[in-house]
Amino acid sequence: MTQKVFYISDGTAITAEVFGHAVLSQFPVEFEALTIPFVETTAKAKSVIKQINDSFITTGIRPIVFHSIIKPEIREIIYSSEGVDYDFLNTFVSPLEQQLGIKASPVIHRTHGKANHTYEARIDAINYAMDNDDGQTMKHMDKADIILLGVSRCGKTPSSLYLSMQFGIKAANYPFTEDDMDNLKLPEVLKRNKSKLFGLTIDPNRLHEIRQSRLENSRYSSLRQCRLEVKEVEMLYKKERIPFVNTTNHSVEEISTKILDMTGLERHMF
Amino acid sequence: MTQKVFYISDGTAITAEVFGHAVLSQFPVEFEALTIPFVETTAKAKSVIKQINDSFITTGIRPIVFHSIIKPEIREIIYSSEGVDYDFLNTFVSPLEQQLGIKASPVIHRTHGKANHTYEARIDAINYAMDNDDGQTMKHMDKADIILLGVSRCGKTPSSLYLSMQFGIKAANYPFTEDDMDNLKLPEVLKRNKSKLFGLTIDPNRLHEIRQSRLENSRYSSLRQCRLEVKEVEMLYKKERIPFVNTTNHSVEEISTKILDMTGLERHMF
Repeated sequence: MTQKVFYISDGTAITAEVFGHAVLSQFPVEFEALTIPFVETTAKAKSVIKQINDSFITTGIRPIVFHSIIKPEIREIIYSSEGVDYDFLNTFVSPLEQQLGIKASPVIHRTHGKANHTYEARIDAINYAMDNDDGQTMKHMDKADIILLGVSRCGKTPSSLYLSMQFGIKAANYPFTEDDMDNLKLPEVLKRNKSKLFGLTIDPNRLHEIRQSRLENSRYSSLRQCRLEVKEVEMLYKKERIPFVNTTNHSVEEISTKILDMTGLERHMF
Repeated sequence: MTQKVFYISDGTAITAEVFGHAVLSQFPVEFEALTIPFVETTAKAKSVIKQINDSFITTGIRPIVFHSIIKPEIREIIYSSEGVDYDFLNTFVSPLEQQLGIKASPVIHRTHGKANHTYEARIDAINYAMDNDDGQTMKHMDKADIILLGVSRCGKTPSSLYLSMQFGIKAANYPFTEDDMDNLKLPEVLKRNKSKLFGLTIDPNRLHEIRQSRLENSRYSSLRQCRLEVKEVEMLYKKERIPFVNTTNHSVEEISTKILDMTGLERHMF
């Protein structure tokens, strides 16, 4: 029987998920998870404890309940269920009150809300990443915080979007194509923005796999072509002293935070 | 003197940030935060505690330290600093070991790593959202998990990207333009995918503000035009019984999770 997990919040439940996911990923087992956001009324809270209790009755196993609930009256109801509560907000707020010498004043929807004064900057960054993806225009490169370089399908687009979405960074990206390979060099606009350049590279075998699933048995996807492109691009990075990372075994989270760590770009938080 | 906060991890530090940010946002004060990811060696860990201790010596205030460190030897070093540790992993892993009756087997980079078998599906979803943004093509609408509708600048693009990035959902979006307004109706391909349609709307005054900052004093940005478009679009949603949300006071996190909550679409986690 798979252990059942509930993520519950009177907000988006994103915090409860991230928190619970981090804790559960320490265990070598599978869980069956259900997320219930926006539990803002006592009626909804009561329907949620019914779900938790039904799961206990059916399986005989107490569900795990991760929650990040701001409203005390909602939290009390959830506490009364047959699940086992892991309440990280409450656990850490009291000691922090002691350390800071001030009382917490919880406001719902503050964590993932729009009140943050940098919210507009984030939306601007997302639009910037969309408009300056894949070298479709070079007009706005001077406004970039960072410009990712790399061959087709090495991870530029997801990384640019993640940098903009998660950290509010204006990330452009520029692709090197098959046609560039005979005489690989940086376009003038990129030379001018040299300090913003950051390279991505990838294992040629993995690149071949990815491209095969896009355009099977083409020159573009051939292992020979993948090897050639990766070799040329890495040589350019070294010659021009452009910092770079290998994306082969890394998620967008890892690639993006590695880029920030190596460049010293500031992380905004939303 | 602003209270100093450190987010520290031997991984991306995204979990430490989300966790700490959620706890700190319960307090009505400003913090000065520094994130240090990829603390993977004892040498780096020692340079980190020097930073923490220097801050204490300079300010006389103990820094707050949120960490999510998997490697025990690194965690021990960080513990020895003059900061006050808030260690949510350790705090919750032991009780969970008891509940589950199994030992945790921590593996670094599992939380935000690529091992997750649905990782490819996530990248596919991101590429899908990029390729099917703003109605640039209608060819792949049949493959969407959800299709967001709305007037220009009501929040379709950031919401689609967030749904794909955070939850692995294939989100397309389709704009209603000025020219559609005389006789507003659904294109054939959207009628065919009616169950996937979800509307966004926005307060006309806010829309006017946003459009003014894009294209000042145009017909497009006039309050009159904003009012007209919002009115027509909301009438269409009601007539066609398309569920919709108002994005005016909500972040992309709130809009996206509200959409999932109302449609019952499954959240994947990465």
